[in-house]
Amino acid sequence: MTTTSTYLHREEHLRSSDVITDVVIGMSDGLTVPFALAAGLSGAVSSSSLVVTAGIAEIVAGAIAMGLGGYLAGRTESDHYQSERRREQIEVDTVPEREKEEVRAVFADMGLSLTLQVAIADEMARDKTKWVDFMMKYELGLDEPNPNRATQSAFTIGGSYMAGGLLPLLPYFLIDVPTQALLYSSGLTLLCLFVFGYVKSKFTGQPPLGGAFKVMLIGALAAAAAFGVARLFGA
Amino acid sequence: MTTTSTYLHREEHLRSSDVITDVVIGMSDGLTVPFALAAGLSGAVSSSSLVVTAGIAEIVAGAIAMGLGGYLAGRTESDHYQSERRREQIEVDTVPEREKEEVRAVFADMGLSLTLQVAIADEMARDKTKWVDFMMKYELGLDEPNPNRATQSAFTIGGSYMAGGLLPLLPYFLIDVPTQALLYSSGLTLLCLFVFGYVKSKFTGQPPLGGAFKVMLIGALAAAAAFGVARLFGA
Repeated sequence: MTTTSTYLHREEHLRSSDVITDVVIGMSDGLTVPFALAAGLSGAVSSSSLVVTAGIAEIVAGAIAMGLGGYLAGRTESDHYQSERRREQIEVDTVPEREKEEVRAVFADMGLSLTLQVAIADEMARDKTKWVDFMMKYELGLDEPNPNRATQSAFTIGGSYMAGGLLPLLPYFLIDVPTQALLYSSGLTLLCLFVFGYVKSKFTGQPPLGGAFKVMLIGALAAAAAFGVARLFGA
Repeated sequence: MTTTSTYLHREEHLRSSDVITDVVIGMSDGLTVPFALAAGLSGAVSSSSLVVTAGIAEIVAGAIAMGLGGYLAGRTESDHYQSERRREQIEVDTVPEREKEEVRAVFADMGLSLTLQVAIADEMARDKTKWVDFMMKYELGLDEPNPNRATQSAFTIGGSYMAGGLLPLLPYFLIDVPTQALLYSSGLTLLCLFVFGYVKSKFTGQPPLGGAFKVMLIGALAAAAAFGVARLFGA
């Protein structure tokens, strides 16, 4: 096992799991919130077309808010990394003794002896790029973000939200009585939430059946609460 | 600067920033999505009471989906940490030589010489608890999650979503013509998004004015898109 292959393996693992994380973020909200909104309105209005209008407005709003939110979060992370890196570079150049003390502190935290702390800090100080790399990752806990991640994240999250959100609305396009459309919508959405929860749990190494039921339960609870509240405040 | 005070300082920093992160997550979506939904419906329906019903259904659905989502994410993180820790404990007991090789690989990645890698791994192996702590944090990159974090996270995210979501709805409670209520709602919400973006950027060390405009822009774009699409699919 060479260190390079370990490093590459980790990087790849990280990137594919970034995309999965984004799909999970977008789709779990997309399947839940528009479904619950449609369920809530079904108890309060008399025509499915109104549920469709509200549902589509919500999907567009949610996809933009989540997608752009993801984009800006990625950009902020990237900017933050670069500005911290510049600061560490300056500190290594101007106050090397203090920075060596900080290297020793990281290894003291790991429980290593003073002898080793000093030997490590001295060796580290010989290569300034490696030194700054080390400070970024182990003193500040920051990994260099993938520069394309922000844009990719925006489209993945937004698209997954739309895909997830349109499913619960399908029956309302076809059936004009909202309470009747709600029956089909509930069946379809709870089934999808179950499958989604199962697959998601498989990916994250959790018990899949338990995960499937949990995800389905959140959807059912949100829909039931929205239905109840919309009845109370009924238009 | 003792290592203990550094450690405590970091922990505290982490926890307070966890709560801020949760408030930011809940409130940025709460101010944006219900606002955009209300804006979208304002162009498609003739009575504010319908906007209020849909808005409240959305707020309840969103708060439950995000709050429970945050709770389950926290629980999953905690379960994952414990199961990985048990696995590392077993590996340290049963295949110590392979685990020492993994310790050396971490330090090889840092660019340290083979001599130091071997010295560190030998010293590390003398205290098994510290050794497992090290593997968790530096090989797997996992920090021990706060056990109360999941519940706290659920209430913080859900509550922030509700607080943020009710603001844009206020004018619709008072004014019966939706397009007129939309004017007040837009002014109020964009102002709140600006203040929210400013404070959020201050906390995360970003340029506050730029951050304020970005957050306001997302809200305005989501609302405009929802308005346009709801008109197209108008009930």
